[in-house]
Amino acid sequence: MLDWVDGRPAQTLPIKDRGLAYGDGLFETIAVKDGRPRFLARHLARLFDGCARLAIPCDQALLRDELQAFCAALGDGVAKLILTRGDGQRGYAPAIPSTPRRILQGSVFPAYPPGNAEQGVRLFPCQTRLAEQPRLAGLKHLNRLEQVLARSEWQDGEHAEGLMRDLSGRVVEGVFSNLFLAKGGVLLTPELSRCGVAGVMRAELLEQAVQQGISVQERDIAYAELLDADEVFLCNSLYGIWPVRALGARDWPVGPLTRKLRDIIRDLDC
Amino acid sequence: MLDWVDGRPAQTLPIKDRGLAYGDGLFETIAVKDGRPRFLARHLARLFDGCARLAIPCDQALLRDELQAFCAALGDGVAKLILTRGDGQRGYAPAIPSTPRRILQGSVFPAYPPGNAEQGVRLFPCQTRLAEQPRLAGLKHLNRLEQVLARSEWQDGEHAEGLMRDLSGRVVEGVFSNLFLAKGGVLLTPELSRCGVAGVMRAELLEQAVQQGISVQERDIAYAELLDADEVFLCNSLYGIWPVRALGARDWPVGPLTRKLRDIIRDLDC
Repeated sequence: MLDWVDGRPAQTLPIKDRGLAYGDGLFETIAVKDGRPRFLARHLARLFDGCARLAIPCDQALLRDELQAFCAALGDGVAKLILTRGDGQRGYAPAIPSTPRRILQGSVFPAYPPGNAEQGVRLFPCQTRLAEQPRLAGLKHLNRLEQVLARSEWQDGEHAEGLMRDLSGRVVEGVFSNLFLAKGGVLLTPELSRCGVAGVMRAELLEQAVQQGISVQERDIAYAELLDADEVFLCNSLYGIWPVRALGARDWPVGPLTRKLRDIIRDLDC
Repeated sequence: MLDWVDGRPAQTLPIKDRGLAYGDGLFETIAVKDGRPRFLARHLARLFDGCARLAIPCDQALLRDELQAFCAALGDGVAKLILTRGDGQRGYAPAIPSTPRRILQGSVFPAYPPGNAEQGVRLFPCQTRLAEQPRLAGLKHLNRLEQVLARSEWQDGEHAEGLMRDLSGRVVEGVFSNLFLAKGGVLLTPELSRCGVAGVMRAELLEQAVQQGISVQERDIAYAELLDADEVFLCNSLYGIWPVRALGARDWPVGPLTRKLRDIIRDLDC
């Protein structure tokens, strides 16, 4: 597949890159259709926000142009963009100024079972909890050992995703998805100021729901409240929406709010 | 300088390595003297413990032999060993089985000011807090954004290290050191079951103190208790012991327990 490092075809990077040494960087995983990155503005906004919060200098125009050129060359599939703080010497102190490194990796679009979006998925209740770190909450940074541990908890094909809670037991997200629930016609999703990744599809759905006149709340959600929900669904920018049909002994139908939003997202031209 | 990847001279690695993608790996920073790694057994024990906890398969004999050969070739300086889970495809699920990657980087020994070990250092009170994550606590893994943020808080040459607390305000460690204090003749160091790195020199000092008949406690330490200490010092496996002479408005003398342990570590032949 297609791979670029700093704008040129390459499949390696220096071992002194701080992305390797410390996970000192950010990434975006972007659906590419007909040579165009989907939800480009949202992906770039999150990436630039991450750069600002981690003080990684970033040439926004260069990144945007390069990503678009990469996607045009890729055609259809998934573009993963990793932006690291660049090379480092020994020690945690960043070089001032840093010279960030841009890594683009192309892959084919994942072959998700069609039933995931139609009949919904079974959610695995992960034991691995998310730590609370407000300085990193919301960002899609390269420190992802919690997700690696959580995703290692199940190997069966029965569970398409895992539920992650924080150390206090609050519901936060899936391992590679955000999570919504509906209760009494209100759409709820965990607020992400302590931990979690503020996903691009989550942001799109929050906006779409408001446009549809659906009442939306971002707030803390207890596990009991999740179990008590009328509908539950997952989302990310690759697969759109997957209804959750089961978590342990609890099961749900594919509810009307879930279907409505799933179909809106499916028909979006962006 | 000398750099090896999987036992051969190399300065690059594949961009699909999971160490880059997720910080999915471990590292050790090892002092090398006359071609031999110092505290080898302790470094390897921590690394192997990390492999077990992260389920990274590890050929212990190969790693030991390769590290020793690398240090023999390096002579004097610092050997940094990074062990990643190896290459990955898209997604958090590790390949089963994984083929870990071994990266060895040589550098010259850092030129620490001699005054650090003699008169002590000034400690910067970092605002960045450590998140509590028992699954990763104690390990020297590659998810180190908290240390990057903390070390970015000061650029002056006045502060040689920074103090890190957890989100509840407990004293945990330095950015690249462990921390001890002495009070009423008792040696205290934070216990590290929620966060922090269980350093090789920390382990060595705990053992040395017991051998010297010094009473030792590993337990939670409040910030007020640190300020109330008779002596405070930092340690790591490169520089040994640095007394702390100041933190904000508080200052300390270089106390008798600190001097005793500093001299013992200095004279160790290992």
